[in-house]
Amino acid sequence: MSLRDVYGGDVLISGWAHSPFGRLDATLERLVVETGSAAITDAGLEPRDIDAVFLGQFNAGMEPLAFASSLALQISDGLWGKPATRVENACASGSAAVHQGLTAILAGTAHRVLVVGAEKMTAAGAQVVGAGLLGADYDLAGQSSSTGFAGLFATVARAYNERHGDCADTLALIAAKSHSNALANPYAHLRKDYDAAFCGTVSPANPLVAAPLRRTDCSPVSDGAAALVLTAEAVTSATHPPVRFLGVGHANDHLPSSRRDPLAFAATELAWHRALDQAGVDLADLSFLEVHDCFTIAELVLYEALGITERGKGRQALDEGWVLREGRQPVNPSGGLKSKGHPVGATGVSQHVLAAMQLTGTAGDMQLPRADLAAVHNMGGLAVANYVSVLGR
Amino acid sequence: MSLRDVYGGDVLISGWAHSPFGRLDATLERLVVETGSAAITDAGLEPRDIDAVFLGQFNAGMEPLAFASSLALQISDGLWGKPATRVENACASGSAAVHQGLTAILAGTAHRVLVVGAEKMTAAGAQVVGAGLLGADYDLAGQSSSTGFAGLFATVARAYNERHGDCADTLALIAAKSHSNALANPYAHLRKDYDAAFCGTVSPANPLVAAPLRRTDCSPVSDGAAALVLTAEAVTSATHPPVRFLGVGHANDHLPSSRRDPLAFAATELAWHRALDQAGVDLADLSFLEVHDCFTIAELVLYEALGITERGKGRQALDEGWVLREGRQPVNPSGGLKSKGHPVGATGVSQHVLAAMQLTGTAGDMQLPRADLAAVHNMGGLAVANYVSVLGR
Repeated sequence: MSLRDVYGGDVLISGWAHSPFGRLDATLERLVVETGSAAITDAGLEPRDIDAVFLGQFNAGMEPLAFASSLALQISDGLWGKPATRVENACASGSAAVHQGLTAILAGTAHRVLVVGAEKMTAAGAQVVGAGLLGADYDLAGQSSSTGFAGLFATVARAYNERHGDCADTLALIAAKSHSNALANPYAHLRKDYDAAFCGTVSPANPLVAAPLRRTDCSPVSDGAAALVLTAEAVTSATHPPVRFLGVGHANDHLPSSRRDPLAFAATELAWHRALDQAGVDLADLSFLEVHDCFTIAELVLYEALGITERGKGRQALDEGWVLREGRQPVNPSGGLKSKGHPVGATGVSQHVLAAMQLTGTAGDMQLPRADLAAVHNMGGLAVANYVSVLGR
Repeated sequence: MSLRDVYGGDVLISGWAHSPFGRLDATLERLVVETGSAAITDAGLEPRDIDAVFLGQFNAGMEPLAFASSLALQISDGLWGKPATRVENACASGSAAVHQGLTAILAGTAHRVLVVGAEKMTAAGAQVVGAGLLGADYDLAGQSSSTGFAGLFATVARAYNERHGDCADTLALIAAKSHSNALANPYAHLRKDYDAAFCGTVSPANPLVAAPLRRTDCSPVSDGAAALVLTAEAVTSATHPPVRFLGVGHANDHLPSSRRDPLAFAATELAWHRALDQAGVDLADLSFLEVHDCFTIAELVLYEALGITERGKGRQALDEGWVLREGRQPVNPSGGLKSKGHPVGATGVSQHVLAAMQLTGTAGDMQLPRADLAAVHNMGGLAVANYVSVLGR
């Protein structure tokens, strides 16, 4: 089984590009144009070869322009008249754009699609960013909150502590792994060698953001963009061999938190199994994973929701070294959202780009020795919108 | 030629629903849930039968919840785990959702899709709505403007006056036609029998909003929702016979106004020809049109861009009576955005619903004697994102 068997056609990642993530001078337009343009070039194509454009962007007031789909047309007059669409699924907006691009290729409405994920956050100021991110929560949208979106994931950590015992040290191990991996990632926002002792200690340099989450448990506010060119057929002039979608899954959960068990990530699990079943692979077949660690507690729960460990036993994945860079199944060898940064709409596209780099042996210092089969997991809200892609060479 | 010939499959509108448009008590959630639920029932389906949900919504700060894709899951537990996606293309967000739903069916990733277009505007206050709408303009986003979005279309009217002579009386004829048609539309926001004399006279009851546009040249700020169920095959238990997509077109123009001739609507013309070519029909074959008359000047330019008249001769369509309700090719028999109201994300879906009603002979007092073939045109910004659908029985 694979996506091709189900739908009768291939979808390939034929080109990609990635901006640095961080506090950047570049405007949203420049991020979209430079990264989109570089991805088209990387695919060995000209702008006029592109049939459709999908932009993943959350926005939510962080950028004054509320109608950004056509920004990619600024790349070149060759894109004039192309259909361009913005898609939004909160922090999964990037994967939403990837999956819409994939759908267009399967439909035959496009043969070569430019997918750009981008977010400009740092120009808006902390208050606007905080309010924007809270706009992704059913109960808190439009309300004020001293702890912002971190407060939401702090409730997950507290629920974890209650149900399975104190996870503070485990979260510090996840943070330290993330920081260590990001040292090799030239696109990462945070490239600091913070060890588990630093991450596990509340200090002036690592204060509590929303108890029990410390600063090192939270992904930073970043600007950035990533882009992919998806094609139905391999492009002979492309810079790299293509990467193939073997399976995809997308599942949404109910929006009100009262209708979800905060530790279940139930619709993540559903999307995960949809993608793996479609690809005809098991967890053990995956060489590595890029997952949505907006907060360290999210990565811990994901070890359990994705079946890497039993429920409540996520720490085992770290103690046994399975998910470390040198382990049998690295999780977030890029540094993940936590250290790479999380420019909301860019994140899902970035995860696909970084997986594609690994699978084609072009990940530079990040390169894993074994990278045959990857899974990407991206979520919006607290496991509300969930996307999984299984990628192979 | 038809969409089926090009893509090898049909896309049918098998059910629909439409809320009243206007200043409503209902929240965004209630609009989505009630209209979406009614469309599923109208299609003779259960919520569990739906494979995917697409929401068209502009938002741009008018609604605090910035992550609304999952609202439709509040309809029923039967929708739990379904993939749900919000799509945005400013005032064409509704058609963006329709066309994404259509793409999913062509791809085979879904066989029954719920498409909801919705916007809650009136709760936000005039200043927030004004800023939100200006967010759709490249040059004015984040700026203050005393004339808001009307000011943009006023520049079109002034350009028209310069190039082709004063169009103030023509715009009044369009406004009067719109008001007259909306009298028969039970969903319309404005149901007032304003004649051309009233619409053509600046008065305390009809002040200038942005010269030369008067209040009667502008669509109102409205709340509302509309929903469709798209299917790959006819549903035997549906309330109505289905409506078929014969052709679709989507084209985006450059975003900066400096890169567009304000009277050309060039990408509208491109999308129009794409859809008609795909459907294999000519303008003369169309029984009626629902077009994006956010302002009366938009409808006038559309007569010319769509080829109803030559450039600069749009008035002929009114003088000869072609586009009137009783004419050979009625334009906006629903009253259009101008009188029906323009809850941004709902508009494109509403246009498809009203066309479907006409084509199935279920349009009640709005029913046209001849309704075999329809075109729907919806645009975001000043002809930046342009969608056209050709629909038949």
